[in-house]
Amino acid sequence: MNCEIIAVGTEILLGDILNTNAQYLSRELSALGVSVFHQCVVGDNEQRLIEAIKTSYNRSDMIILTGGLGPTEDDITKETVAKALSINLVYHKESYERIVEYFKNRYMSPTNEKQAYVLENSTVLQNNNGTAPGCLYEQNGKTVVILPGPPFEMQPMFEDYVKPFIMKKNGGIIKSKFIRVFGIGESNAEYLLKDIIQNQTNPTVAPYAKKTESTFRITAKANNENEADSLITDMSEKIYNILGDAVYGEDDDTLQSVLVKLLQENSLKISFAESCTAGLIASKIGEISGASDVFCESYITYSNEAKHRLVDVDERIIAEYGAVSSQTAIAMANGVRSASCSDIGISVTGISGPTGGSKEKPVGLTYIGVSYMDISRAYKFVFKGDRNKNRELAAYNALNIARLTILGKDVYNDLH
Amino acid sequence: MNCEIIAVGTEILLGDILNTNAQYLSRELSALGVSVFHQCVVGDNEQRLIEAIKTSYNRSDMIILTGGLGPTEDDITKETVAKALSINLVYHKESYERIVEYFKNRYMSPTNEKQAYVLENSTVLQNNNGTAPGCLYEQNGKTVVILPGPPFEMQPMFEDYVKPFIMKKNGGIIKSKFIRVFGIGESNAEYLLKDIIQNQTNPTVAPYAKKTESTFRITAKANNENEADSLITDMSEKIYNILGDAVYGEDDDTLQSVLVKLLQENSLKISFAESCTAGLIASKIGEISGASDVFCESYITYSNEAKHRLVDVDERIIAEYGAVSSQTAIAMANGVRSASCSDIGISVTGISGPTGGSKEKPVGLTYIGVSYMDISRAYKFVFKGDRNKNRELAAYNALNIARLTILGKDVYNDLH
Repeated sequence: MNCEIIAVGTEILLGDILNTNAQYLSRELSALGVSVFHQCVVGDNEQRLIEAIKTSYNRSDMIILTGGLGPTEDDITKETVAKALSINLVYHKESYERIVEYFKNRYMSPTNEKQAYVLENSTVLQNNNGTAPGCLYEQNGKTVVILPGPPFEMQPMFEDYVKPFIMKKNGGIIKSKFIRVFGIGESNAEYLLKDIIQNQTNPTVAPYAKKTESTFRITAKANNENEADSLITDMSEKIYNILGDAVYGEDDDTLQSVLVKLLQENSLKISFAESCTAGLIASKIGEISGASDVFCESYITYSNEAKHRLVDVDERIIAEYGAVSSQTAIAMANGVRSASCSDIGISVTGISGPTGGSKEKPVGLTYIGVSYMDISRAYKFVFKGDRNKNRELAAYNALNIARLTILGKDVYNDLH
Repeated sequence: MNCEIIAVGTEILLGDILNTNAQYLSRELSALGVSVFHQCVVGDNEQRLIEAIKTSYNRSDMIILTGGLGPTEDDITKETVAKALSINLVYHKESYERIVEYFKNRYMSPTNEKQAYVLENSTVLQNNNGTAPGCLYEQNGKTVVILPGPPFEMQPMFEDYVKPFIMKKNGGIIKSKFIRVFGIGESNAEYLLKDIIQNQTNPTVAPYAKKTESTFRITAKANNENEADSLITDMSEKIYNILGDAVYGEDDDTLQSVLVKLLQENSLKISFAESCTAGLIASKIGEISGASDVFCESYITYSNEAKHRLVDVDERIIAEYGAVSSQTAIAMANGVRSASCSDIGISVTGISGPTGGSKEKPVGLTYIGVSYMDISRAYKFVFKGDRNKNRELAAYNALNIARLTILGKDVYNDLH
């Protein structure tokens, strides 16, 4: 089965908003085994939209349109699909009642009423996050789906209605799992998994490049959920055996959520002494609800004087080895661990750039220190990005080093 | 003049990458007065790409294609444009030499050679950030532009070659300036500027919604640069007179870059005592090269005990008013200012959520404290987002409060 995606909206053609819906839908369709050969964007213009709908309808099994379901006169998707494919629009009482309820104690413009009209003989897709219902319409072996534009309305509607519809059409079950990988470089991870990737049938393994880490999506087709789970588990184990500790989590895990969980499970507290990252690492811990179980205080020791005064780095160390050195990083990590009475202290000191580099100590040179139990060490990196890329890389590597140290695993000094 | 954008790449159709090029080009073209009625994505498939090129060529004045200029056999854009429009490909010696130079001491696969072929009689667009040159080809009043896929290669090439080309075709000059606004809410800013926006001719004023702030792009067309600048300056002044201190900068300014500059100009040092933001504010200061002039140390006082021990908040204040209170925020701001010997101390204490709220102190309740000269005060907010949205809003408001306080201006307590 193949599907085309049509995003409707002049604001996309003006560059006012980014068309993330196309990527979301393409990913989901791909994981469901549906091919996408065309994506396009059309404005709020009846003639061009009719043209796009007819072209897509003629060459594909399925079209998904997003956007243009609002109450204004620029919102013409449903009306235009109806016109292009000679379908009637009919009043849907339930949708109207939901719209009225949505506006409860507030003014409801009469133009909102038009949102309660749907394609005749379609399946109405309820919108639990907005006023506009979607439609799923089948005719002559083709399917036309109309979804709202805002992602927080569109995605749940796709998940709740369109995905099960496709799965039912395919027969059987399709399930996915994301494997989260950090620390060995994206092309390295793909290289290590090349036999799996080249020989994949079912499940499939798709690499998703991300900014600072790698992700692999395992997708299994099966007759039922248990079989799908079993295929996914087998493939996950194959990947774990190859990538080892570079796999830090699955699905919605992040390095910080995994670290906080690990600290919670081991009743440990963590603190950071951050120089160049300037609070970036601590702020990622702060993203995690429940962080206060494992995190009470942290320091940004941006100047040499602050490194000395706040986390007890001996001035002679800085004088002899420099602020950006393994010796200073180790002293910072030990110092923050004591000063904050934490179980594990992590430090970062580096030259993010663009200025500050030299031949001996180039821009990107960064040391990450760790102090935990009887471990006192620093890891050296030379990052190759711009200032903020280098700081991001330092922050993620710091979280990863904390994770691996607590797990008692080796840290791979992968130079990005 | 109208233009279509064709993004080439199966990875976009698989949802592996987000098509940001379409948004960038649409924005730039819109600012240049060029209409975009169609955007589409096609895979690395010759037949479908030929179809897309021919369709676009027939209905538009200009096509811009991005992607598919790499060295692999899946990279077919140039070859396919040549085929679709019956143009020869010719060897471009200068491009070949640049490619060889790029690979200098590294292995260069022979497949890289194909990147040195260009459309006959086209203008070759030099790539200063990668190996693949672009092409700009004119025929029968139509223009076809081929650009690389990676944004950091495509954008400079567009800026350096395509933009001047379009401006020359338009005749005259087109210049833009972004006005950066924070603190009064996007719909409020638009409302305040509604007369300007409704009556716009030249220059135009386009609102760009951003996550936590508003931006307005002023675009002027004129016969020469001086005239354009003059039109822009006049319009900027109109906007400043209406929006006042909510305008914090222009073009590439960010709240943090503007604040750092202000601190530098006034020889001031700043520190933060962060609770819920957990380092987010300090890390934004750390983004700015030169921050060390104005920033030496900062604290994350996540627990009540840390608020007491690190920034001297009296335990009785926390006991009586709670950690999330104006009294605690003021004490934290005063405390961090003394402890760090800074000129200005900023504090944040709040309930980011999703847990921790109550009837009296709901999720989103946040106090931002400021201690500067003889000023010791706290501002109350009730943010309405999820955990991380609330933390982002707190961080940006903290930066803005620091800015306005140093400028001696009032702070608008806009509840987002």
